[in-house]
Amino acid sequence: MFSALHLRTPAHCESWVGHGTITRMAKRGFELRVPEGDSIKRSVCGDCGFIDYRNPRIICGVVPIFEDKVLLCTRAIEPRVGFWTVPAGFMEIGETPAEGAAREAIEEANADIEVGDLIGVYSIRHIGQVHMYYRGQMRNSNFHAGPESLEVRLFDWEDIPWGNLAFPTIEWALRDFERNRGRTQALPGERSTQAPD
Amino acid sequence: MFSALHLRTPAHCESWVGHGTITRMAKRGFELRVPEGDSIKRSVCGDCGFIDYRNPRIICGVVPIFEDKVLLCTRAIEPRVGFWTVPAGFMEIGETPAEGAAREAIEEANADIEVGDLIGVYSIRHIGQVHMYYRGQMRNSNFHAGPESLEVRLFDWEDIPWGNLAFPTIEWALRDFERNRGRTQALPGERSTQAPD
Repeated sequence: MFSALHLRTPAHCESWVGHGTITRMAKRGFELRVPEGDSIKRSVCGDCGFIDYRNPRIICGVVPIFEDKVLLCTRAIEPRVGFWTVPAGFMEIGETPAEGAAREAIEEANADIEVGDLIGVYSIRHIGQVHMYYRGQMRNSNFHAGPESLEVRLFDWEDIPWGNLAFPTIEWALRDFERNRGRTQALPGERSTQAPD
Repeated sequence: MFSALHLRTPAHCESWVGHGTITRMAKRGFELRVPEGDSIKRSVCGDCGFIDYRNPRIICGVVPIFEDKVLLCTRAIEPRVGFWTVPAGFMEIGETPAEGAAREAIEEANADIEVGDLIGVYSIRHIGQVHMYYRGQMRNSNFHAGPESLEVRLFDWEDIPWGNLAFPTIEWALRDFERNRGRTQALPGERSTQAPD
């Protein structure tokens, strides 16, 4: 499915999408139904036919390296405050995933990073997220915690706090980085989770 | 930026997001401002603080191969009706990009495909899209046009209608596929476009 409607041009009517649940939206003139030519139920405006598509979002991150050490940050914000992560966050409109990863390294660790090859693509199906992690070469050893980090540190590989990483995808990215470290170009790993029972 | 708010749990208030422009939303109780700790203007509910994040969306596609031939479809829907494409479309919540690519091959060409390595990641910055294309091995030579395709055909490589492809990313995926064809695993290409002048 790849139609003009997906491009989200400004709608031509004044009906509303609630920012709560789909059920609540349905009460305000939207109905939950399978649009013609589609196979999935969507919230559709009963007035003008506008379809409120919901699609997965991209998390972009980087594994920053300086002299064989890896840069990790402790999270200052929920979820998982105090656990270790690499710089990562939601990709924004107007950037590439690699540019987003570099931006996150600045925001979270004030680190200047040359972003390299894609390490892996990790899908978290049940929350509609695709995580994309890149190799990163730190241009210098200057860094300090941004407002979203409590602490930022360089770790030798053997000192990585594996038991205190914030999310599974952080470990996947570090493991896939390590696995492909000797190659001249990284091969992307691809992993995904099922919805929890 | 990777906070709990991004997880889009059901909101706790009854304010509304219009499905028109951001300006129109602003009229209905939403204001356009940089939320605390953020660096980008967002549409924020003046009542409960709900932030209407807009993020790029993923197009997932596959280059389907059967006996050294490539499967192409002509588009039956706008934009670019009548131009050639590989199966591709918006990724849905609950699937991986590779699963989405396999689904699109069924919907558009009724083709049963084993999806393989990632060919490339292509960012179209100005419309907030990330296109991810995969290698695909057709399990048999059965296929026929779905409702979104006018015609589906297998092409020898030298007969690909390069001048009549639907989108630049289709050509990029085919070229990157060809470039890495001899390798045991594909290396992802990464490309992006600037906004048009």
